[in-house]
Amino acid sequence: MQLTQFTDYSLRVLIYLARNPEAGPATVPEIAAYHGISRNHLVKVVNNLANQGFILTSRGKGGGMRLARPAHMIGVGEVVRLTEPHMNIVECFDPKANACTITRGCFLTGILYEARRAFMSTLDKYTLADAAQVGIPGTLRGGPGERPA
Amino acid sequence: MQLTQFTDYSLRVLIYLARNPEAGPATVPEIAAYHGISRNHLVKVVNNLANQGFILTSRGKGGGMRLARPAHMIGVGEVVRLTEPHMNIVECFDPKANACTITRGCFLTGILYEARRAFMSTLDKYTLADAAQVGIPGTLRGGPGERPA
Repeated sequence: MQLTQFTDYSLRVLIYLARNPEAGPATVPEIAAYHGISRNHLVKVVNNLANQGFILTSRGKGGGMRLARPAHMIGVGEVVRLTEPHMNIVECFDPKANACTITRGCFLTGILYEARRAFMSTLDKYTLADAAQVGIPGTLRGGPGERPA
Repeated sequence: MQLTQFTDYSLRVLIYLARNPEAGPATVPEIAAYHGISRNHLVKVVNNLANQGFILTSRGKGGGMRLARPAHMIGVGEVVRLTEPHMNIVECFDPKANACTITRGCFLTGILYEARRAFMSTLDKYTLADAAQVGIPGTLRGGPGERPA
């Protein structure tokens, strides 16, 4: 189980912008070089972030991208919901694609919905400002705690 | 974000066996037909379930598979952990493969670990006996509740 690389890279771009608010608009080549990600890949990520209202972009000399809102007003859960293609933990979460024969009366579905809610509720507790902090992980006020395997 | 089809099918096989304990050993063709899954696919799923100690298999006439333990002694979280290839939500969860440049001092990692713990803790509250219940989802004692989108 994993988030897509697209979501992973979206979060990295936003963290970069949140950590460098004074540096002026950031460019795709700059972020691509910092993160070691292909520019082509990053262009798609950045376009989606702009379309979803997380960043503002400007063209021309001195142009680039910056956060559309202060980092503490961008929820981590919000970013994941708007960058991840879907959150269908199993087939039956998507009624259109579902072919599972035990969907009717299946309690597992409810259990997995509850688990997804728990996952997303955790992300909803944090903002980009929390995620972009520089320091020792595990010391964030109120969590997150240690990182067991 | 989704579980692999391998885990999904593993859960379906176990639910089938849990729902039909009196029917004697079940065969791969029988379960494949019931679930509309290819036999080849199911053979790999069943082999792994046997290797992980969830089912017992017997050969020959009248042979097949059955649960190795009562359904209430098989945790849903345990099944997911032993069938999902990995639970690396993002790249840095796997230190060997990780190439993220902001891993040191990244608070997002801790947030995602906390979210994964919340997901797995939910699954750990339930057993195969809960998942295999036949009835109206959402009425399971103690949860899971309604199923929002």
